[in-house]
Amino acid sequence: MAAPGDDARLARLADIAVKVGANVQPGQLVVVLALVEAAPAARAVAASAYRAGARFVDVKYVDRHLTRALIELGPDDSLGWSAPWDMTLFETMAAEHAAYIQVAGEYDPNLLADLDGSKVGRARPRDVFGLWGRLVSERKVAWTMVPAPTPAWATEVFGRPDVDKLWTAIEKALRTDRPDPASAWRARLDRLEEIATELTARRFDAIRYRGPGTDLTVGLLPSGRWRSGKFETVFGQPHVPNLPTEEVFTSPDKNRAEGKVRSTRPLNLRGNIVRDLEFRTHDGRIVEVGATSGADVIRSQIAVDADAGRLGELALVDGSSEVGKLGLTFFETLFDENATCHIAYGDGFNFCVDDEADQRSGLSSSVEHTDFMVGGPEVDVDGRESSGSWVPILRGDEFQIA
Amino acid sequence: MAAPGDDARLARLADIAVKVGANVQPGQLVVVLALVEAAPAARAVAASAYRAGARFVDVKYVDRHLTRALIELGPDDSLGWSAPWDMTLFETMAAEHAAYIQVAGEYDPNLLADLDGSKVGRARPRDVFGLWGRLVSERKVAWTMVPAPTPAWATEVFGRPDVDKLWTAIEKALRTDRPDPASAWRARLDRLEEIATELTARRFDAIRYRGPGTDLTVGLLPSGRWRSGKFETVFGQPHVPNLPTEEVFTSPDKNRAEGKVRSTRPLNLRGNIVRDLEFRTHDGRIVEVGATSGADVIRSQIAVDADAGRLGELALVDGSSEVGKLGLTFFETLFDENATCHIAYGDGFNFCVDDEADQRSGLSSSVEHTDFMVGGPEVDVDGRESSGSWVPILRGDEFQIA
Repeated sequence: MAAPGDDARLARLADIAVKVGANVQPGQLVVVLALVEAAPAARAVAASAYRAGARFVDVKYVDRHLTRALIELGPDDSLGWSAPWDMTLFETMAAEHAAYIQVAGEYDPNLLADLDGSKVGRARPRDVFGLWGRLVSERKVAWTMVPAPTPAWATEVFGRPDVDKLWTAIEKALRTDRPDPASAWRARLDRLEEIATELTARRFDAIRYRGPGTDLTVGLLPSGRWRSGKFETVFGQPHVPNLPTEEVFTSPDKNRAEGKVRSTRPLNLRGNIVRDLEFRTHDGRIVEVGATSGADVIRSQIAVDADAGRLGELALVDGSSEVGKLGLTFFETLFDENATCHIAYGDGFNFCVDDEADQRSGLSSSVEHTDFMVGGPEVDVDGRESSGSWVPILRGDEFQIA
Repeated sequence: MAAPGDDARLARLADIAVKVGANVQPGQLVVVLALVEAAPAARAVAASAYRAGARFVDVKYVDRHLTRALIELGPDDSLGWSAPWDMTLFETMAAEHAAYIQVAGEYDPNLLADLDGSKVGRARPRDVFGLWGRLVSERKVAWTMVPAPTPAWATEVFGRPDVDKLWTAIEKALRTDRPDPASAWRARLDRLEEIATELTARRFDAIRYRGPGTDLTVGLLPSGRWRSGKFETVFGQPHVPNLPTEEVFTSPDKNRAEGKVRSTRPLNLRGNIVRDLEFRTHDGRIVEVGATSGADVIRSQIAVDADAGRLGELALVDGSSEVGKLGLTFFETLFDENATCHIAYGDGFNFCVDDEADQRSGLSSSVEHTDFMVGGPEVDVDGRESSGSWVPILRGDEFQIA
């Protein structure tokens, strides 16, 4: 149901995804992933990609109602099954140096809420996610993820299907409300890269989070590297994996996390809203999970493989984030993780760890990767230098370095 | 936009597709093909298939807007490209003895109407269609095709988006308005099989169509066989490829078609409406194409390969067809071809020709297969016996045999 003006907004959204996000090159194969409900955005992206010279654009439509049918009515053995054609899709993208544009936007965050949480946790194609994780780590695909508003998503954010209001928020976060969104992103990415470079140069041995319900210390690897959203594939194509992006991030030592952490925002985990999430970690591993809803989904998730319950990512976001300034909870990781600092359990990124020995011994490797939010003015973040002294990194939502 | 009562209708539609059409077996892999706009029907089919014991159900969503973007904005070389992941989909279906349920239902029959017709004709994945044609011929997949109403389709049929009225027509054609649709189909299929058996037994050497603008004689092959919609895969699974099905059909001798034929209904060819179609054939080949709209799409289609412009199918439908009784033009082959007699140019079916030598010398083999309608009370159909005498097969829309 398109409202007047939607076409222009969709075209701006599509252009920023194609030109800045995936940075589609002439002759390139482009695959778009979108919910069925986001077909208008997927079509706009396809048109923009062809205008940028794409050789062929396919859209893989995803339907969460099928996930529901599988969980509710299908055999348990099939929950983690990967269709061979989906494997071929990702293998071909890698072989052909493709661009991959994911259109994010939830259909109905409560769609899976009444189902068995342990089944919801296991209902994803494991081999496909494993392969995709490797392609990301090995920088084989020029990928990006952009949002698309849907009525159900607007209802979750605002309590009513005010898609126009959600569009306004998204345009602000995506900077597509500015005269030259591409150059606005260049400036922002340069600033984030500056902070990441400084954090890497400091060679902190550990990061500590302190706030209400939170006192967590996570070790870093000696050859760890902080990154911004400025990426480049192995075949030399610059791209920006997430739009919006407001974070700097690294992958920590999977064997060193100690203490407790309380998430500062609700989390939409495959159609299940997890509220008041708390973890206790010991020796790098999540040993206790608490939540007022959705805890069983997380418990089954972190049992999927050996590193699913270890930390794979630490990300820092300060108060200058355009997403954070909106003051909204989007129930959509792409937005909420760019509003404030976050941590992920599960898979780490080998492009965040330079040394192969460090990768082998200390980098988490899992088919899972889930971000949860721990940030805001009440959360202090410090880094421990090799001397043992602690240096403030974030205070009152402002970076204290760079 | 679901109206009250749609859920029950969708469930009945899905059940007839799953139980009679594909006849889904416990443990079977099921793939559903559907337009994005037909997602509610695809979801109902998925649920019904799981209830019948399917191991896994995937839906491949098709979006004609992407075809439009490819034609309008993409490179010419890509028009016939087949994505490797789609090849894997069909290869896997064959290897796993899968069921394949196509949900038909046009989005907007005029979507591609303003584009270059020769490009529209070439815009389809040739290798995928070639592979699919082989799987059909070799009976490797338990497949079926069922309709799903959409507002755009209702508009095309009734001049307004009266989906409820379209549902009523579809339910009548599908016999899902009856207390026991499955047994109604068993009876109808038995009757059609009886006619097919009799036609095969007569061993006609040729079939002649006579009517307004039509006088066409098409040769049959010595080992040709007439079929009804009762099919069985090579692995022994009975299925019904089309629902509704009201036809008996065979594949003719590709080298013997002589005369002219005028289509008695408009044809929706990949979003292009072809009106007032006329062909002249000589030595088995279409040598002239006329139409008041869409002729260029057909001309580019029949030039695709050597047999694209030869006849691949002759099908007979009498006035007892529930589709024919509705007296509507659906602009959707699945319905219109079951309303009245039809002929297809392009690929033939090797399961309609018993002898391999006949298959090699006389059976059309093409990536194309397009049905057009030539029937009704004004079209007489006769068969020539080996003695040379002509026997009436259809008069005034009634079978004169069996």
